Amino acid sequence: MTSPAVPSATSSEIEFWFEFGSNYSYVSVMRIEEAARRPGVRIVWKPFVLGPIFRALGMESSPFVLQNEKGVYMQQDMTRLCRKYGLAPWMRPSVFPRVGILPLRIALLGAQQPWVGPFSRKVMELNFALDQDINHPDQMAPILTGLGQPSSDILEQAQSERIKTRLREQTDEARARGIFGAPTFFVGTEMFWGNDRLDDALVFAAERSGREKS
Amino acid sequence: MTSPAVPSATSSEIEFWFEFGSNYSYVSVMRIEEAARRPGVRIVWKPFVLGPIFRALGMESSPFVLQNEKGVYMQQDMTRLCRKYGLAPWMRPSVFPRVGILPLRIALLGAQQPWVGPFSRKVMELNFALDQDINHPDQMAPILTGLGQPSSDILEQAQSERIKTRLREQTDEARARGIFGAPTFFVGTEMFWGNDRLDDALVFAAERSGREKS
Repeated sequence: MTSPAVPSATSSEIEFWFEFGSNYSYVSVMRIEEAARRPGVRIVWKPFVLGPIFRALGMESSPFVLQNEKGVYMQQDMTRLCRKYGLAPWMRPSVFPRVGILPLRIALLGAQQPWVGPFSRKVMELNFALDQDINHPDQMAPILTGLGQPSSDILEQAQSERIKTRLREQTDEARARGIFGAPTFFVGTEMFWGNDRLDDALVFAAERSGREKS
Repeated sequence: MTSPAVPSATSSEIEFWFEFGSNYSYVSVMRIEEAARRPGVRIVWKPFVLGPIFRALGMESSPFVLQNEKGVYMQQDMTRLCRKYGLAPWMRPSVFPRVGILPLRIALLGAQQPWVGPFSRKVMELNFALDQDINHPDQMAPILTGLGQPSSDILEQAQSERIKTRLREQTDEARARGIFGAPTFFVGTEMFWGNDRLDDALVFAAERSGREKS
């Protein structure tokens, strides 16, 4: 008898917990697929809602709104990060943080589809590069159509009770896992917080996979 | 008539705002002198007290104490960072955050002396690698003596009203400059928050210096 094979898929995976209203999630959404390609790490897309997480920690909004000093600094930091990663020049969105429940539901619905990456990048660009709202079907439909997807079908499913409930459950799971901000990455039980840790998390995922195979 | 020379010293300088109770300051204190040597950036040591800064932001202690999730995560993150930078294996100090007003006063007194770097590293090791208190003359004297310094003289001066006042003023300046955590780096008016930004700040300082000279 041979011992049961360890599923190798789980060991070169990274869970990517993100929110469309979060500016540091924006940076990670724009670069994660390219960054994960070289080390061959599979991305598990985990959209969730930050608001309930912040409220559970006693905050009524984003720390960048509640702490003026942090908010002022974040603008400087984003200006440099957008330059560093070749994104559109940073401008402070006129609404921050933007509500993005509808695109989160769509991303949850498509989390295992190849279009989830390009879709998420388009939504982030709408919010952070074009300064437009992201929470209405009229804004989501052209993105989905542009990706060759049946937009009416997807929008209808995204607004079903099943998907609404699943997004709430995924947000509860984020809280239960100890997530306190976005983006957050998990490789197994190892947690990495912030866009600044994406590269470390990918290295960890690739090395862990190597260790388990050898 | 020639135009007045721009002082070149200011353009390849980095201000290093740090606190002996701060674990991410620990990582930066241990590596900043080596990291700044290659690009030839001069370090301006700026010890300050975090407590009044946190209180001004409405927090009665460190965010790692107030937010349990963040505190739990920080332990994981520090374990990885200590490994990454070749520091002693991370262990959670039995007192956190440790009060380090006396060593901050000594560092302020010696901020322009060559011993400020090695002194600061010894204090940080006492706190974070050896889990010992850092706020008593008996712990500071051997460090100073070990560095060939007149410990009684320095301890007496460090506890003078003049230095006590200067540390309060430097902390007020930190707040006025928009500092909300430690470590924080400034290159001119450009602010960089966190050990994660030390390398970016050094590159910025070196490039800025190059631009101003050319």
